[in-house]
Amino acid sequence: MRNAVEWCDDHLEVIDQTALPARFEIAKLSTVDDVVDAIKRLVVRGAPAIGVCGAFGVVIGLHEGRQLTEVVATIGDARPTAVNLKHAVERVARATDPLAEAKRIHDEDRESCLRIGEFGRAELASAKTLLTHCNTGRLATSGIGTALGVVYSKFEAGEDIAVIATETRPLLQGGRLTAWELRDAGIPVTLIADSAAGAALRAGKADAVIVGCDRVAANGDVANKIGTYALAVLSRAANVPFYVAGPLSSFDPKTPDGRAIEIEIRPADEVLNASGAEVDVWNPAFDVTPAHLVTAFITDAGVLRPPFTLTIANAFGSLS
Amino acid sequence: MRNAVEWCDDHLEVIDQTALPARFEIAKLSTVDDVVDAIKRLVVRGAPAIGVCGAFGVVIGLHEGRQLTEVVATIGDARPTAVNLKHAVERVARATDPLAEAKRIHDEDRESCLRIGEFGRAELASAKTLLTHCNTGRLATSGIGTALGVVYSKFEAGEDIAVIATETRPLLQGGRLTAWELRDAGIPVTLIADSAAGAALRAGKADAVIVGCDRVAANGDVANKIGTYALAVLSRAANVPFYVAGPLSSFDPKTPDGRAIEIEIRPADEVLNASGAEVDVWNPAFDVTPAHLVTAFITDAGVLRPPFTLTIANAFGSLS
Repeated sequence: MRNAVEWCDDHLEVIDQTALPARFEIAKLSTVDDVVDAIKRLVVRGAPAIGVCGAFGVVIGLHEGRQLTEVVATIGDARPTAVNLKHAVERVARATDPLAEAKRIHDEDRESCLRIGEFGRAELASAKTLLTHCNTGRLATSGIGTALGVVYSKFEAGEDIAVIATETRPLLQGGRLTAWELRDAGIPVTLIADSAAGAALRAGKADAVIVGCDRVAANGDVANKIGTYALAVLSRAANVPFYVAGPLSSFDPKTPDGRAIEIEIRPADEVLNASGAEVDVWNPAFDVTPAHLVTAFITDAGVLRPPFTLTIANAFGSLS
Repeated sequence: MRNAVEWCDDHLEVIDQTALPARFEIAKLSTVDDVVDAIKRLVVRGAPAIGVCGAFGVVIGLHEGRQLTEVVATIGDARPTAVNLKHAVERVARATDPLAEAKRIHDEDRESCLRIGEFGRAELASAKTLLTHCNTGRLATSGIGTALGVVYSKFEAGEDIAVIATETRPLLQGGRLTAWELRDAGIPVTLIADSAAGAALRAGKADAVIVGCDRVAANGDVANKIGTYALAVLSRAANVPFYVAGPLSSFDPKTPDGRAIEIEIRPADEVLNASGAEVDVWNPAFDVTPAHLVTAFITDAGVLRPPFTLTIANAFGSLS
């Protein structure tokens, strides 16, 4: 499969994730405005993928002759919750060779996915069915994905693996994207309504839940796609382990805990479109799962277990 | 507003709930086959409403000259989970004057709603915002509804009341029906994706959760719309009271507990239609909420509190 984000000499080409699975279309992003629009409209989505997109976006901005600080602010604020975007944009802005730095971020993301996949495969050696939420695979990253990276790693290693995917309303990233990419890879996938996840877990249909993350705070609180918190509570109630997979670039030691994470509120139409109702809507794109509900983090630096304040700090300490 | 189910001399007229809110259409049910089809396709839905529909369906079957036992079986099995349907069909079948009995069931349902509304209003006197799931109002019953009946009662009494309604995928009874009927009544309603309910409860946005029921077992286990179990777990996690509203005709003392309740599995298309995916689906229409997660039942015979095995038996004892 083509990569979700590709750099082509002087512009980005991305798979238009708003069109899948009905149409496979490539969107060409040649200006900062194109990049910001693609990130805001979720043409490109997934915390690692928008980080990579933002990194090359800074390079495009410099080619356009735009002022660096303005480009950094414009792209960095396109979506507020995932920290990868800000991290990547700032790294490129600080670099002496911005293009080389953007390519490095792209490569690192690909390699991080492989490491997450292998750490996850070891951790979840006995798991045959994983329940997941949203999309965290090839469409959400530059590589095999984070939570779905673990699924791909198990599958590539010849292990028995099947996935239960939630639809993930309102934008149906599970129904449209995860179902599509797993089917494309030949991995068995069963789609469920978001509201069926509790019953599925209670019925013992999944050996573990594994999700991605948009931002992990220093204490292990996790911002991720709306519905993640509910899955964590339901996993605990059903005594099913709850894993969060993501690269350290999705962790933010400067965010002390979940209360400090800005949660993006998306337009009402995303919800209203489905039913044709004309009423008020509350449409948060993310929620915060408290650290105590997380069994472990599967990162590109290994599996982090409680107490997370310590193990997250250690993971960053060992990098510096 | 017109009633969801109306008897017109020799046929039923029902609001076609598959067409709302885009179109307000009346479906005419003149044969048993019409009635069964309408129940199966959810043209008529809501445990009390399909009970009333089934009751008049038996009358129609007798007018058609069909054999009584066959009519009872055909209509009674149209949907397996709600017990109202079987109860109503059997009552009419046993009656010396079937039409009078069907009309009695219709009237009782209307009155039950009013009683549930008043008992609920007293119980939830201090609640200003109620979170609900699916549709349990004028469209789901012959009267003001069960869970929504409490909302209407509070509203009619001039109390401050607002509703947070879940979309209720896959068939969007919340987004299409609850949003529509509350807006029609002038009651403030905020629509959320099903997966946002956990975050809403954790954020303290609702004073209580109130849902309907398709079947309550002798021990208080509750079969209701898929997603109800998750709401009960999430309510408990957020320390928000979780109420189940319904008439005693939705209780079945012959069902010892939730394990004995048949859960209807609905077609995959209901889930796949939204995303265009082509994968396996698990689409249970209902789930079972264990009794220990229910704060209290608001019934037409009063508020039933734990221990439910005792209070449910007492409620039936006091009727006999």
